[in-house]
Amino acid sequence: MAENRPPDPSRRSERSRRAIHDAALGLVGEVGYGRTTVEAIAARAGVGKQTIYRWWPSKAAVLLDAFIDLGNRAAREAGEQAAGFPDTGDLAADLKLVLRATVDELNDPAFEAPTRALAAAGIVDPQLGAEFVQKLLDPGLQLYATRLRAAQEAGRVRAGVDPRIALELLVGPLTHRWLLRTLPLTHTYADAVVDYALHGIANP
Amino acid sequence: MAENRPPDPSRRSERSRRAIHDAALGLVGEVGYGRTTVEAIAARAGVGKQTIYRWWPSKAAVLLDAFIDLGNRAAREAGEQAAGFPDTGDLAADLKLVLRATVDELNDPAFEAPTRALAAAGIVDPQLGAEFVQKLLDPGLQLYATRLRAAQEAGRVRAGVDPRIALELLVGPLTHRWLLRTLPLTHTYADAVVDYALHGIANP
Repeated sequence: MAENRPPDPSRRSERSRRAIHDAALGLVGEVGYGRTTVEAIAARAGVGKQTIYRWWPSKAAVLLDAFIDLGNRAAREAGEQAAGFPDTGDLAADLKLVLRATVDELNDPAFEAPTRALAAAGIVDPQLGAEFVQKLLDPGLQLYATRLRAAQEAGRVRAGVDPRIALELLVGPLTHRWLLRTLPLTHTYADAVVDYALHGIANP
Repeated sequence: MAENRPPDPSRRSERSRRAIHDAALGLVGEVGYGRTTVEAIAARAGVGKQTIYRWWPSKAAVLLDAFIDLGNRAAREAGEQAAGFPDTGDLAADLKLVLRATVDELNDPAFEAPTRALAAAGIVDPQLGAEFVQKLLDPGLQLYATRLRAAQEAGRVRAGVDPRIALELLVGPLTHRWLLRTLPLTHTYADAVVDYALHGIANP
């Protein structure tokens, strides 16, 4: 009978890991990256500090995993594929779908505070910034580059265009508007960015 | 004879003001916005704390003026006009000139540390962020919007394009690359961003 089974250590680990992730994201959103400590994460998660150090070498490593986990959970909730960039053959539609989802994610309070705290820390700390760009940001940017390259091979994107630069005309405006809070981040805005980036703002 | 003239109070004020600006920018670049204090600015500038409070109500106000002064000095050194966005009739050339100058400014060590510190502080502090966007960022963005609107009236920009969104395809990519340090910020990159934004990445 279930009640008599010994506790499952892997399930308990999973619960602790999730509690540590949630504590880390909550703290960094509340007090900032600089004032978040491994001690405070452990206390909030209800585990010993040694439990954290058994799994992660540093505060940055805990947060990195916590963000990857948060992104995966959000993707699962949104019903997205794990390897996730749509390719229906309609580049504009695919880009609008992804940029609208990005808008929703950036406007989601669960993301907002910790993502801002981490971005702010990386902006003034080159080593931390490089680690998070390499492990969190670049994999997502590569998905854009791959999709744009496929469109280029299908003759939909101009031959001379560098996909690695082109993707910045899509993600750059959203990031700018969100980080600096210049104007509201909406689906209408995401659609306009895609249209302008694809067709240009100049008269042909 | 010069040696016998009494000290000129307005010139002494100007010297103090400049010393306070330099101290504020130096400190914020070294220790961050949060740990910069009016006391420390006063000590480094060699003035009393009351001198600062006579001219500015807060640390944020000192830094705001220091940044405006830094921008004006850089513009003067670059030989730019005060009201500054070129309109030669060649939109691509004008935009490349401005974006290349922005690249140079962002790569200038005198700007780098304090600008990063301020951006990071604004990203996690909505009130501070709003103040700096309104007073430091928006006036520059308005110059882009005005130039794009003039091009639109001259038939060079498509009629349906919103200049306030279009400008983000120019400044967004540069800001993204610079803040997150994804790849080097160069003139070649600035030129590509202008070309892609004007003519689009899609095959016509």
